[in-house]
Amino acid sequence: MAVGLNKPSRLLPIEGIKIATVAAGIRYPDRDDMVLMTMVDGATTAGVFTQNKFCAAPVTLAKQHLSQSMPRALLINSGNANAGTGIQGMDNAVASCAAVAKKFNCKLSEVLPFSTGVIGEQLSMDKLQAGIASLVENGRQDNWLSAAEAIMTTDTLAKGSSRQLIINGETITITGMVKGSGMINPNMATLLAYVATDACIDSQLLQVMLEKSSAASFNRITVDSDTSTNDALMLIATGKTKLALMSSMDEPASQLFYESLESLLIELATAVIRDAEGATKFVKVTIKNGHSLADCETIAYSMAHSPLVKTALFASDPNWGRLLMAIGKADVRSLDVSKIAVKINDLNLLKNGEPANDYTEAAGQAVFQQDEIEITVDLNQGDANYHVWTSDLSHDYVSINADYRS
Amino acid sequence: MAVGLNKPSRLLPIEGIKIATVAAGIRYPDRDDMVLMTMVDGATTAGVFTQNKFCAAPVTLAKQHLSQSMPRALLINSGNANAGTGIQGMDNAVASCAAVAKKFNCKLSEVLPFSTGVIGEQLSMDKLQAGIASLVENGRQDNWLSAAEAIMTTDTLAKGSSRQLIINGETITITGMVKGSGMINPNMATLLAYVATDACIDSQLLQVMLEKSSAASFNRITVDSDTSTNDALMLIATGKTKLALMSSMDEPASQLFYESLESLLIELATAVIRDAEGATKFVKVTIKNGHSLADCETIAYSMAHSPLVKTALFASDPNWGRLLMAIGKADVRSLDVSKIAVKINDLNLLKNGEPANDYTEAAGQAVFQQDEIEITVDLNQGDANYHVWTSDLSHDYVSINADYRS
Repeated sequence: MAVGLNKPSRLLPIEGIKIATVAAGIRYPDRDDMVLMTMVDGATTAGVFTQNKFCAAPVTLAKQHLSQSMPRALLINSGNANAGTGIQGMDNAVASCAAVAKKFNCKLSEVLPFSTGVIGEQLSMDKLQAGIASLVENGRQDNWLSAAEAIMTTDTLAKGSSRQLIINGETITITGMVKGSGMINPNMATLLAYVATDACIDSQLLQVMLEKSSAASFNRITVDSDTSTNDALMLIATGKTKLALMSSMDEPASQLFYESLESLLIELATAVIRDAEGATKFVKVTIKNGHSLADCETIAYSMAHSPLVKTALFASDPNWGRLLMAIGKADVRSLDVSKIAVKINDLNLLKNGEPANDYTEAAGQAVFQQDEIEITVDLNQGDANYHVWTSDLSHDYVSINADYRS
Repeated sequence: MAVGLNKPSRLLPIEGIKIATVAAGIRYPDRDDMVLMTMVDGATTAGVFTQNKFCAAPVTLAKQHLSQSMPRALLINSGNANAGTGIQGMDNAVASCAAVAKKFNCKLSEVLPFSTGVIGEQLSMDKLQAGIASLVENGRQDNWLSAAEAIMTTDTLAKGSSRQLIINGETITITGMVKGSGMINPNMATLLAYVATDACIDSQLLQVMLEKSSAASFNRITVDSDTSTNDALMLIATGKTKLALMSSMDEPASQLFYESLESLLIELATAVIRDAEGATKFVKVTIKNGHSLADCETIAYSMAHSPLVKTALFASDPNWGRLLMAIGKADVRSLDVSKIAVKINDLNLLKNGEPANDYTEAAGQAVFQQDEIEITVDLNQGDANYHVWTSDLSHDYVSINADYRS
């Protein structure tokens, strides 16, 4: 089902990171569902997490641990989100970290837990503990792709990518993986994403880079307007290359690295949309020349969240009146509709608020039938711009989400 | 498909109002698609309209005419919304009103136009003019039910209701009809609704009553979060009963009348939800004891608009973790989740932010399988309350909206 997306053939290993996976039987039969990622001593780690107020126990604990120590291990399970599980859920998250810490002889706060899957059910701690016992024996550097598969839930394929760049003669590698296809409208990060590099980066700068790059990538995607309880995006720098420490965004090396990082994060974030639940279209919605960034953002999400826009996209039906409806219903202070121009790919739909003279139904049909669509709204009333990526609303979306838990 | 709703067997006539319908062939074969409602001289009329900034030409014109004169005639067509149609669309709306005004020898501004259907296509004026010629000959008092059928688009049945009450020994009748089942998240009114009474009510008071009662009814329903370009709700008082003029909400007669009016509008608004596109569930979401009305409203709509909540409802799956997700993602300033209690009908899901001890999967399944569901969220952090009515998200919703125009 994924739109213009294939499983990566390989993800490059990062020196200083080992990954193990195991089939613990938490929910799915016959597939890996737990991952342990361990970092070399001295690695720096930054994280951004969901802002859902009912955030999961592992999210609460991971944030707390990250504020206390630089992590040595990340423990991830799929099939159960350990969210809405109350005190018992928090006890289970702590016990999971404690089991890892004991094996690695590190502090409890040096282990971060992550869970994804069904909300509102307790984890089976027997299965989790047995999984942990196996994981600590089997870490390998070249294991990212198995991990990308183990963290999947309704994803149809493993998603990840690598970048290499040369800074001052030194080859730097960045590798990332992500899972997520529904309950996607991140507000800091999306479901679970892990990105690592062998560059050496100061932990404060790493956090700055992560927040800036996630704002340009994961915070601009939406499948269904639903913000998960479990979103987390982690960025790790192992410092295993000989390149000097990056400590400020002003350094040329930091700029070069940041460009690659942002490009990788956009690739991962858009991969989530290409693999969105039931998606048959990959859609970019761009709002140009608005009064303010907030106005542009509001209109972009009003369109990207509209069930009627999304079902028209699914139908490949050039029912563009629904685009106008979704612009017009957006809660922005003032909007002069007589200035607005709307295009789909290169085809004009509206100019100066009037139906475009050169539009034909046949031309509209031809564009709406494409898999990849860009909708551009030129407000012509300011200089602010915003864009989001989204998917369509299909029968498969309903099937996947009506059948997912049962 | 409608949930707990049947076509009314009869709608009571209102003295002073005549209604004609005709099959003009605007879009649908073999059914009426135009309505002309004419009011006796001296009738007062109030209206509320969509706040969509791309509002349709007939909405713009109806608002303008209503500000100039008390209307003598309402001209309604289904099958074409005359929205997103630019200058040509406005010319067509004016020409339609002019044709009616000429036949009735009244002012142009005494005719209000209303359209509903596909957005972005021009009306066929030949068909409309022929329809008008037939309509002006055939007005009858006892014709509300035919009109309720003629204004339908994706509605599965005609929706309307009547009330009678006795004030100071005089029998007052109120009759209303409504159409709408998709693109429903009204922001002043829903698609098209017409309510009339033979009471005598001052026009300013009529507007006050309409705004207050629509806030309690039509502004609290949502099918898909999409606010139509064409919403309009009209309230007409013909003054044909002998009861004295109502001119202030403080009068006992006004209070009695208002209670009946609000009850009728809630019945009509919830009928739209019962007949929502693809609906298999009728759902009331109540948020209690919040910090503020705005907080309660934000959380209520966050739940009612969530595709994941709506697909779980469709599946009759007690996947209540999604309810917590939708509460937690709501953009409210502060929320102490440890105080929150959640119930579905009488079954406790959450107490003090913890999973309820007495909840069982079997009990959850039994409640989610019902056609009519009430979700109650007690925030326990203030004294504000809000509720909305909504429907589920089914395969039929996708089919109806992917197939509607093509």
